[in-house]
Amino acid sequence: MARIVMKFGGTSMAGIERIRSVAQRVKREVAAGNQVAVVVSAMAGETDRLVGFCREASPLYDPAEYDVVVAAGEQITSGLLAIALQAIGVPARSWLGWQLPIATSDAHSRARIGDIDTVALDASLTAGHVAVIPGFQGVDPDGRVTTLGRGGSDTSAVAVAAAMKAERCDIYTDVDGVYTTDPRIVPRARKLGRVTYEEMLELASVGAKVLQTRSVGLAMKEKVRVQVLSSFTGDDAPMADTLPGTMIVGEDEIGENDTVERQLITGIAHDKNEAKITLVSVPDRPGSVGSIFTPLAAAGINVDMIVQNVAHSAGSTDVTFTVPAADLPRSLEVLNGADIGFEKLVHDTRVAKVSVVGVGMRSHAGVAATMFETLGARGINIQAITTSEIKVSVLIEEDYTELAVRVLHTAYGLDSEVAA
Amino acid sequence: MARIVMKFGGTSMAGIERIRSVAQRVKREVAAGNQVAVVVSAMAGETDRLVGFCREASPLYDPAEYDVVVAAGEQITSGLLAIALQAIGVPARSWLGWQLPIATSDAHSRARIGDIDTVALDASLTAGHVAVIPGFQGVDPDGRVTTLGRGGSDTSAVAVAAAMKAERCDIYTDVDGVYTTDPRIVPRARKLGRVTYEEMLELASVGAKVLQTRSVGLAMKEKVRVQVLSSFTGDDAPMADTLPGTMIVGEDEIGENDTVERQLITGIAHDKNEAKITLVSVPDRPGSVGSIFTPLAAAGINVDMIVQNVAHSAGSTDVTFTVPAADLPRSLEVLNGADIGFEKLVHDTRVAKVSVVGVGMRSHAGVAATMFETLGARGINIQAITTSEIKVSVLIEEDYTELAVRVLHTAYGLDSEVAA
Repeated sequence: MARIVMKFGGTSMAGIERIRSVAQRVKREVAAGNQVAVVVSAMAGETDRLVGFCREASPLYDPAEYDVVVAAGEQITSGLLAIALQAIGVPARSWLGWQLPIATSDAHSRARIGDIDTVALDASLTAGHVAVIPGFQGVDPDGRVTTLGRGGSDTSAVAVAAAMKAERCDIYTDVDGVYTTDPRIVPRARKLGRVTYEEMLELASVGAKVLQTRSVGLAMKEKVRVQVLSSFTGDDAPMADTLPGTMIVGEDEIGENDTVERQLITGIAHDKNEAKITLVSVPDRPGSVGSIFTPLAAAGINVDMIVQNVAHSAGSTDVTFTVPAADLPRSLEVLNGADIGFEKLVHDTRVAKVSVVGVGMRSHAGVAATMFETLGARGINIQAITTSEIKVSVLIEEDYTELAVRVLHTAYGLDSEVAA
Repeated sequence: MARIVMKFGGTSMAGIERIRSVAQRVKREVAAGNQVAVVVSAMAGETDRLVGFCREASPLYDPAEYDVVVAAGEQITSGLLAIALQAIGVPARSWLGWQLPIATSDAHSRARIGDIDTVALDASLTAGHVAVIPGFQGVDPDGRVTTLGRGGSDTSAVAVAAAMKAERCDIYTDVDGVYTTDPRIVPRARKLGRVTYEEMLELASVGAKVLQTRSVGLAMKEKVRVQVLSSFTGDDAPMADTLPGTMIVGEDEIGENDTVERQLITGIAHDKNEAKITLVSVPDRPGSVGSIFTPLAAAGINVDMIVQNVAHSAGSTDVTFTVPAADLPRSLEVLNGADIGFEKLVHDTRVAKVSVVGVGMRSHAGVAATMFETLGARGINIQAITTSEIKVSVLIEEDYTELAVRVLHTAYGLDSEVAA
């Protein structure tokens, strides 16, 4: 017997027919002797509908009331799944965020989970009842409804798994695992059996949209084993503990076999939602870099890649960096209003960030060199570079994104023998 | 300064444009110096949508989970109205059923309201905040979500008004008050300025669908003054305390002026949702009537009018009664399965109940006689009769309903001078 958490997204909950199929899948885990908590999203489209109502009511809506409105979406699906489970003979009940409770901060619309009380939950699971828990929602210290921000249901699932000491947290998605890269770009991309939390964080944050970055960070902190699985496999699919999804685990769980088979690089990600800004001829003196990034930080804009060029002879330098494309207009406003003293501001949204990720690169020199050579051989110009312990990212012209991903996938030996 | 409750139905909450117009109306009451709680229904159609989901998930759904699902409808509108109020400068917050809390019994999907805690509500109202409260919902002793049954929002509004000792409870509906009869049948029907709780109960339960019967009963018990108003009056309409809606009050509030103007009969109601059942040749001995009605009661079927004919010479009698038309199939099943011993069962849904209602009839003989004569003069046959202290009801052939209502309206002097 094991305790597991199963998490289903909006596509899996879109309509009663699909909710019934989720119930069947849950039933199989229960029949196998597991104690199961299910974390559900709202029906696909429902959260957008509710958010739209709030925006229409007031563009400057009160986030506390927004939370009351949008939390209703997951409340509905959790009740419906409990009904669908009972209908096939599986004892089940819903536990709303305030009922468990799932305590969060009072940062409405982007609350952070604190404690999850497990007294009632433990009793219910031990009694053999499936606990159906709406994702995305909690309750703050004043007893008001909170939500965790878009995509927060993954985080709810991992937090519940940590609280109930689950053996693993199965995240059912519309992909069947984490791939070495986007299979739409590289048909020979391979599904990864295991990735480490750190790799998944880098892959997620650079554009592999399988899991919320935040949920991976939480899983790493709480050591929750997360499995990414397809929700579209038929009823006769193998049980989740033998399914060929991708398991996201600590580095200690990457065993002998993995190491033998393992490539230097785990995956290649790309992200077209960046915008590049260059400030030309910024005074080259102490404090001038601070005068650029302090006001951006104050405006809540995340700066990613930063390149400071060699100083011009005239005592000035050019500074290039990237921000999320959606934040570009606001960034320009902030920069033009700040006291920086640049000569000219140039910006460009026709850029893409391509990253190679892998814990293996720690012990191998030459990963970055291979990347630069490979791209150079195809005439792809590198506009900026950032590196971390397990990642090298380059900024290139957007039109070359797919080409870059493809040649790097081959260069690092990631191509499978057959096309997917 | 007064405390008032304003209640808006699903039509008033159907879409953000209408919710904005509700907010404007609330603002005017606040600007007049009132402390206001607003009780809201779900958007028109939303409860049906959610109920449909539950039924589709399982025809035998768990009512506790049904409550979780359907309570979401009012949760959504309460958050949206709070946002719309804040947007026009009116401090407001939503209070969900479990937050106040509104304590109810654990009879899911048809719970009864117990206590409403007013500590937090009082503090919030005194601080000048409008309290937006979802109707229809509460929380049971185990902390689970409950709902009060369809149309329960009227009952929520009256219960909140009683708890906060409101001066009155304004129910905004799609009619502008209570009329002497259905104006679609009698264009010269008059709007009533005041009716007593008892009259309203009789009018509501015989088919004048303005207010939930249950809410009127609660208002009578708790002495809450209820006003029925139109929600479609424009922004320049007079304030609710001078609006020509209908006030539902205790008999002690029916003053001199009312008495002078007041007719013997307050209103005439009709109800086509009855079915007539006649059991022919039931043994005429002690206990035989019990053998008919006990099994019906056990099946939860409300029997309304009952007529026992004079015994036949052969020691048997005919018994005629009515049940809600929707319960007819189940009633026939119960009766055919019971040990009664009738010779034949005849049933008919082409009947209607027409009732004259008024506290004035207490002190006046001859009300029933006028009714029978008036109907007889038009050749309308009376199939059954029931009376209460303030009501006389007759069962007639359905086709004569409108004619009966019209001639009675004239006979009791209820016609106004001009057609509506």
